[in-house]
Amino acid sequence: MAIEASKEEAGGTRIRYGMVGGGQGAFIGAVHRIAARIDDQFELVAGALSSDPARAKASAKELGIADDRAYGSFEEMAKAEAAREDGIEAVAIVTPNHMHAPAAKAFLEAGIHVICDKPITTTVAEAEELAALVEKTGKVFVLTHNYTGYPMIRQAREMVARGDLGTIRLVQAEYPQDWLTEPAERSGSKQAEWRTDPKRSGAGGSIGDIGTHAYNLAAFVSGLELDEVLAQLTTFVEGRQLDDDVQILTKWKGGAKGMLWASQVAVGNENGLKLRVYGTKGGLEWTQADPNYLWFTPFGQPKQLLTRGGAGALPVAGRVTRVPGGHPEGYLEGFATIYAEAARAIRAARVGRAPDADVVYPTVADGVAGMKFIDASVRSSRAGNVWTKV
Amino acid sequence: MAIEASKEEAGGTRIRYGMVGGGQGAFIGAVHRIAARIDDQFELVAGALSSDPARAKASAKELGIADDRAYGSFEEMAKAEAAREDGIEAVAIVTPNHMHAPAAKAFLEAGIHVICDKPITTTVAEAEELAALVEKTGKVFVLTHNYTGYPMIRQAREMVARGDLGTIRLVQAEYPQDWLTEPAERSGSKQAEWRTDPKRSGAGGSIGDIGTHAYNLAAFVSGLELDEVLAQLTTFVEGRQLDDDVQILTKWKGGAKGMLWASQVAVGNENGLKLRVYGTKGGLEWTQADPNYLWFTPFGQPKQLLTRGGAGALPVAGRVTRVPGGHPEGYLEGFATIYAEAARAIRAARVGRAPDADVVYPTVADGVAGMKFIDASVRSSRAGNVWTKV
Amino acid sequence: MAIEASKEEAGGTRIRYGMVGGGQGAFIGAVHRIAARIDDQFELVAGALSSDPARAKASAKELGIADDRAYGSFEEMAKAEAAREDGIEAVAIVTPNHMHAPAAKAFLEAGIHVICDKPITTTVAEAEELAALVEKTGKVFVLTHNYTGYPMIRQAREMVARGDLGTIRLVQAEYPQDWLTEPAERSGSKQAEWRTDPKRSGAGGSIGDIGTHAYNLAAFVSGLELDEVLAQLTTFVEGRQLDDDVQILTKWKGGAKGMLWASQVAVGNENGLKLRVYGTKGGLEWTQADPNYLWFTPFGQPKQLLTRGGAGALPVAGRVTRVPGGHPEGYLEGFATIYAEAARAIRAARVGRAPDADVVYPTVADGVAGMKFIDASVRSSRAGNVWTKV
Amino acid sequence: MAIEASKEEAGGTRIRYGMVGGGQGAFIGAVHRIAARIDDQFELVAGALSSDPARAKASAKELGIADDRAYGSFEEMAKAEAAREDGIEAVAIVTPNHMHAPAAKAFLEAGIHVICDKPITTTVAEAEELAALVEKTGKVFVLTHNYTGYPMIRQAREMVARGDLGTIRLVQAEYPQDWLTEPAERSGSKQAEWRTDPKRSGAGGSIGDIGTHAYNLAAFVSGLELDEVLAQLTTFVEGRQLDDDVQILTKWKGGAKGMLWASQVAVGNENGLKLRVYGTKGGLEWTQADPNYLWFTPFGQPKQLLTRGGAGALPVAGRVTRVPGGHPEGYLEGFATIYAEAARAIRAARVGRAPDADVVYPTVADGVAGMKFIDASVRSSRAGNVWTKV
Repeated sequence: MAIEASKEEAGGTRIRYGMVGGGQGAFIGAVHRIAARIDDQFELVAGALSSDPARAKASAKELGIADDRAYGSFEEMAKAEAAREDGIEAVAIVTPNHMHAPAAKAFLEAGIHVICDKPITTTVAEAEELAALVEKTGKVFVLTHNYTGYPMIRQAREMVARGDLGTIRLVQAEYPQDWLTEPAERSGSKQAEWRTDPKRSGAGGSIGDIGTHAYNLAAFVSGLELDEVLAQLTTFVEGRQLDDDVQILTKWKGGAKGMLWASQVAVGNENGLKLRVYGTKGGLEWTQADPNYLWFTPFGQPKQLLTRGGAGALPVAGRVTRVPGGHPEGYLEGFATIYAEAARAIRAARVGRAPDADVVYPTVADGVAGMKFIDASVRSSRAGNVWTKV
Repeated sequence: MAIEASKEEAGGTRIRYGMVGGGQGAFIGAVHRIAARIDDQFELVAGALSSDPARAKASAKELGIADDRAYGSFEEMAKAEAAREDGIEAVAIVTPNHMHAPAAKAFLEAGIHVICDKPITTTVAEAEELAALVEKTGKVFVLTHNYTGYPMIRQAREMVARGDLGTIRLVQAEYPQDWLTEPAERSGSKQAEWRTDPKRSGAGGSIGDIGTHAYNLAAFVSGLELDEVLAQLTTFVEGRQLDDDVQILTKWKGGAKGMLWASQVAVGNENGLKLRVYGTKGGLEWTQADPNYLWFTPFGQPKQLLTRGGAGALPVAGRVTRVPGGHPEGYLEGFATIYAEAARAIRAARVGRAPDADVVYPTVADGVAGMKFIDASVRSSRAGNVWTKV
Repeated sequence: MAIEASKEEAGGTRIRYGMVGGGQGAFIGAVHRIAARIDDQFELVAGALSSDPARAKASAKELGIADDRAYGSFEEMAKAEAAREDGIEAVAIVTPNHMHAPAAKAFLEAGIHVICDKPITTTVAEAEELAALVEKTGKVFVLTHNYTGYPMIRQAREMVARGDLGTIRLVQAEYPQDWLTEPAERSGSKQAEWRTDPKRSGAGGSIGDIGTHAYNLAAFVSGLELDEVLAQLTTFVEGRQLDDDVQILTKWKGGAKGMLWASQVAVGNENGLKLRVYGTKGGLEWTQADPNYLWFTPFGQPKQLLTRGGAGALPVAGRVTRVPGGHPEGYLEGFATIYAEAARAIRAARVGRAPDADVVYPTVADGVAGMKFIDASVRSSRAGNVWTKV
Repeated sequence: MAIEASKEEAGGTRIRYGMVGGGQGAFIGAVHRIAARIDDQFELVAGALSSDPARAKASAKELGIADDRAYGSFEEMAKAEAAREDGIEAVAIVTPNHMHAPAAKAFLEAGIHVICDKPITTTVAEAEELAALVEKTGKVFVLTHNYTGYPMIRQAREMVARGDLGTIRLVQAEYPQDWLTEPAERSGSKQAEWRTDPKRSGAGGSIGDIGTHAYNLAAFVSGLELDEVLAQLTTFVEGRQLDDDVQILTKWKGGAKGMLWASQVAVGNENGLKLRVYGTKGGLEWTQADPNYLWFTPFGQPKQLLTRGGAGALPVAGRVTRVPGGHPEGYLEGFATIYAEAARAIRAARVGRAPDADVVYPTVADGVAGMKFIDASVRSSRAGNVWTKV
C-alpha cells in the first residue's frame, strides 16, 4: 500500500481539478477520473466536458459538478476558474488530439497545472510552442503516457539504468490491436471516427494513437534517445484516411537498434503492447496485457520471472504498488500512478518547491519527442522509407 | 465503462460510510477504501480505525476524517453516527475476524448497512445470529468475497447457469500461497500474527483466510451447494497454532465432487487461487493472478481463451467492466465491483426498494455457508479425516 | 547430443529385441518401437504382435520381421527365441495389462530381459511374484513409466535429492484427461474398450491407466515412499465398469502430504500430467505438455524458469538431452531415454556387470509399488474413503 | 500414429542412405540420423563424415558403417556408391554451407537422391546451378527446412490456403537467439567458428543461419512470394565477421507486408522462432518452442488454442502426427517428417512415379528462393537499407 493517499501530505487537502472533454460517450475521460480517484489526491469540481453544450451540462450533472462550474468551453472555464478563490489547481485534457494544444495553452496561461492525454498535439511546432509555455509559466505539465506507471516498467527502467543489461543493443517494441480490421469508422464507432480523421488526429493514425505509446515506453525503459527512423505507414482498409499499420526501423543514440510495429488490423490482438530490451549482459521482456510480470535473463543464467510485489521487485516498483504480489494490478492502477506522481509535483509546486527526485512522469519534453517521432516517421514513409533524423 | 459512477443515480449523492479497523499498518482497510473510491459511489466520513486510540486518531487525520468523527471504538461510532442527521449510511468492517460479529451487530442495530470482510465471524453460531439480525433489520449486508467481482468469474457463473458445461461433475479449487513458509508471525509480521492466532482468527488458519475464498468461489461459479467435506488440516511450521495447509475432498449436492487445497507454505505461489469446473458438456478454467482470461472448452471442440472485453464476453461480464479488452483489470477493480453492487443495493434501500435482479454480491447467507464449511472441515480433520456434513 | 547412440559401446552391435502386442490398431506398441529406434540401440527382429494370428502375421510383415520370427503366441516366441543362437536379448511387452505378468514370466524364465509397459500387472500378488522372478533370474526388467525419462524430471529429482527444496512438505500430482467424457467404449474405440474392462485392466480404471503415472512421477521426483492413501474412485459415466476419476489424499513417509487427482472426464485436458513439490526451502512445478520447462522458486527469491538445455540445466538433464535448448524435445524422446537406459543396463549385463551408477529406469520394485498404490486406493475407496496403508 | 513406418510400403525395404559431414563433434548430423530413424524408412550404410580422415573413420565405426563404406571424401563416396549394386539411394549432406553445392552436385550426377541441410548454398548462382541439375537429373532433392515438418505449421499453411484468414495483410516473423551474445567463436565453439566465417557460411551470418528459416517458414505458411526486402544487417559483437542481427521489412506479392527479425544476441532467447500471420478475416500465431499449439482468432470471435491431436486439428496435421494430443512432439519429430516425406518421394521415384499430391517438403526451388532472400538482404543492407527486389 506504498502510495496510499494521505490528504495531509504537503499540508493539504485534495487537489481541485477540472476536465476538458470526457463527457458522455467518451472513453478516456472516465479512465482519467478513476485514475484520479484511486489514490484520493484529486477532486473533480469543474468541467468543459463536451463541445456540445447540452451534453456538457448533462455530463457535469452526472459527475456531481456544480452547475456554475459546468462550462460550455475550455476558454470560459480557464478564465472563470482562474478568477475563483476556490478555482481548480489542475486541469485534465482528454479531448481528441487537435484540441490538446489550445486547451493546454489556455490553462497554462491562466496559471493552472495541466494533465494532458497523448499525443500531446498534432504537430511538432505546436508541441514546441507548448514546451516553451510550460517553461515560461513554470506550471506542472503531465502527459499521460500511462504505461510508464506500471510498477514493472518502473522496475525495468531502473534495471537498465543501473546496468543489469550492460550496454543496450536492441530495443524491440510492438503494439498490435485488431479493432480497426474492418472500417469501424463507417459503422458508427465514435472512437474509430475521430482516430481515423486527420483533422482531429493529426498526420498519424495508428502511429499517433498507439505507435507513440510504444515509442514512449521504449525510450522510457531504455533511457535512450531516438536518433533516426525508417518508417513504412500503411493503410490496409480501403478508404481509410490514415495509416492503420506502421513498421519502423529505429536507430538510437549510442548504437542501439530496434524495430517498432504498431497495427490496428492484427486480428487476435487486443492491446498487445510489448517491449523487449537486450544488452550485452542481459535481456528484459514485458507485455502490457500481463503487466505484473517482468522476464529478466542475465546472460548465461536461468530466466527469472520477476513479479510486482515478489522477491525480485525493486523499491522503485514497490513505491508505486498498492496490493501484494499475486493480486494483479492493472491498467487503471498504472494510470493512477501517473496521477499520484502529478499530485506530488503539484503539492511541491504549492509550496514553491521542485518535486522530489523520485517523482517520475512523462513531461512536455516527452510530448515534443513523441511528436518528432511521429513527424519523422511520416516524413520517412512519404519519402519512400528512408532513414530520417528525428 | 459500463459501471462508471453516476452520483445522481437513484436520486442522490455519494453514500456516506465509515470504517472499523483499517488504520495505519493494516492492509485490507486501504484496499476497501480504494475499492470504494473507484466507482465514486462512496465517501468516507467516519472511522474507528484502530483499537489503539492514538493510532485511531492519527489514521483518521491522514484520511481526511473530521476530528469529531474519529471514534475510539465501534460502539461509540455506531451510537454517534446513528444520532447524526448526516450520519453514515454504511460501515465497512475490516478488523481481524473476531471483531466482525460484534461490530456488525452494533451497526445493524443502529440501522446502518454493513460491508464486512471475510470470513464473516469466527463461529457458525455467531454467523447465524448475524444472519437473523440482518433478516430482522432488513439492512444490506455485503460480505467482501471480492473474487466474485471479477468479470470473468461473473461470466463463468453465467456460463454454468445457462448450461454451457452441462451437468457439473467436478469442481477443483485451490489457493496456494507461500508467505507463511517460515514462522513470519515470530519475526514481526502483524499480518502473520493475527492470522495465526486462534483468538483473533477463529479455529481455522489457512482454511479461514484463503480456503473460504476458494470454497466461496467454487460455490459461486458452480451454483452448487456443498454437502459434505473430508478435510485434513495440517500445520507444517513448528509452533504455529493454526493450520497452514488444508486438503479437502468435497461432495456437492447433485453429485458433483471435487478437491480443494489451500496452503500458505507452497513456495513459489503468491496468491494462486484457481478454479476449474468440468461438466458433461464442457470445462472452464480460471486463475486469479491472470483474471482477465477464462479458458472454456466445449467437449470435442477447440479450447477457447475468452477475454474480459473480448468477443466472447457476455453482458454479465461487460456490465462490471471498466476498460477495454487487453487493458487488464485487476484485484482492486474486482473489489470495487463488490462496492458498486453494494451501492446499488443501498440506493435501492434508500427508496424502499429491493435491489435490481442483476445486482450480485456475497450475502450474509454466503457468510453462514462459509463458516459451516470451515466448521465442518475442522471437525472432519479432528475426527481423523472423515466425511462430515456441512 | 549427449546420448547419441554408439553401437560400439560395450563392445557390441544393436540389441536384438522382440515385441509382444503392438500389432495393427494398437497405440503404445508403435511408441515403443520409435523410442527403441531414436538412439539406435535396438533392432526389432521378432514379434507376437497380436492374439489374432492373421493380424500378428500381417503386422510382423509390415514391420520387416522375418516370417519365421512372427509368432502366434508369446509362449511360442519365448521358447523359440531362447533356442536360437541369434535369438532376442530383450522383449518389449505392450499388451493390455492382464497379459503383462504371464508374458514377462515366460521371457524371464527363458533368460530374456524384459521391457514392460505399465501398470506392471493387474494385482499386487502377480507383481510380487514377478519381482521375485526378476530377483531370481537376474535379468533386467524395465517398466516404461516413460515420464521419468524427461530431462527436466531428471533435473527435478536431482534438485530434490541434493536439497534445493529443503525438507519436502507437499507433493501435489494430477493427471486430468477428457477422452472418456462420453462412453467412447460403446462407440467403437478399441483403446477405450480394454481400458474400461476390469478383465483386461484390473481393478483400476483411471487410477491404473494414468493415476499410476502420477503416483510414479511423484515418488520418482520426491524420492519419498508412500505411506497411506485415502482415495475416492468415481465412475461418472453411467454404465462404465471402472472408475473414470480418482481423488486421493496421500501421506508420505517422513511427513510430507499431498493430493493426487486423475480424471478422464475433465473436459479441456488432453494429457495434463502436472507435478508440484514444495519443501521448506523451495518449490518446483512441471507440466508434461510443456516438458522442456521446470519452474523453480527458492523461497524468498525470484521464480526461475529452468529450460532443458538452458543455463540452469544440470548434468543429469544434459546427459539425456539430444538437441539444444529452445528446440523442444517431447514424449517420444522421454520414452526413448527409458530405452537408452535399458540398453545400458542390458549391455552391462552382457558382460556380467551391474549397470553404471547413473543409469536410471523404473524397475520391477517400482511396479510393485505402483500396484500397491492402486490396490490400497481401491480398498480405501471401497471402505468409504478411509486412510489405508500402502 | 499416422505415419508409422511400413517398410513394405512401395514394395520395399528401408532406403539405404549415406551421410556427408556429421562426424564426431558436429551437431546437425546426429539430428538428421535420429530423424531418419524415427519412422524407420532409412538405413545408414555409408559416410564421408569428416574432412579429417581419422575422424571420418572413427565416426563411421561408431555409427556401425562398414569399413569399406567409410570414405575420405564425398567425391570418392559418390563414385564408389554409384558403382555398388547395394549402393546408397540417397545422401544426407550436413556439412558447413560452402560444401553443400559441390557435394550435392557430385551425388546428383551419380544418380543419387539428395537430402541437404540449409541454406542450400552460399550464393544464388550456385543454387540456380543446382536447381538446373536437379531438373536435368530428375532426382529427388529435399532441403531440410525442418520447421515445415511441424504438424501445426502444416495446419497453419492449410488454414491460410483454404481462406480461414481471408486476404493476408501482415506476415511477422522472428527468430531470436542469444548464443552469440559474446564472441563464442573466439573461445573454442566449433559451431560458432564456422557460422561466423564468411568462407564457410557465405555472405550472411545470422541471416543465413536462422533468418532463412524465418523467411522459409513465412513463405511456407502464407503461401506468398516475397517481392522486396529492406534490410539492415548488424554486427554487434566487435571483431565478428558476419552479421549477428538482421532487421528486415518485407513486401510480398499481392500486397502483404511484414517484418522479419533474426538475432543471435537477444539475451534470454534460445530458439525463439515465431510466426504471426494476419488477414482480413483472421489471425494465426505459432511459436517453435511450443510447437504443439497454434493460436487462431477468427475476427470478432474468441481466440482458439488449436492443439496437435486436438479437436481442431486438420487431416494435414494429423497425417504427420505420431502421438496423441497433450503428449508433445518436438523438434526431432518435425525433422523426421521431412525424412518421411523424402522417403515417400524416393519410393515413388523407385517405381518411376511422381510423389503423391500430399507429399510436402522444401525443394531446391525453396533453396533458390532462400538464397535470393539472403542475397537481396545483403545487397539492401550494403546499399544503405533500401528496397531491393528479391
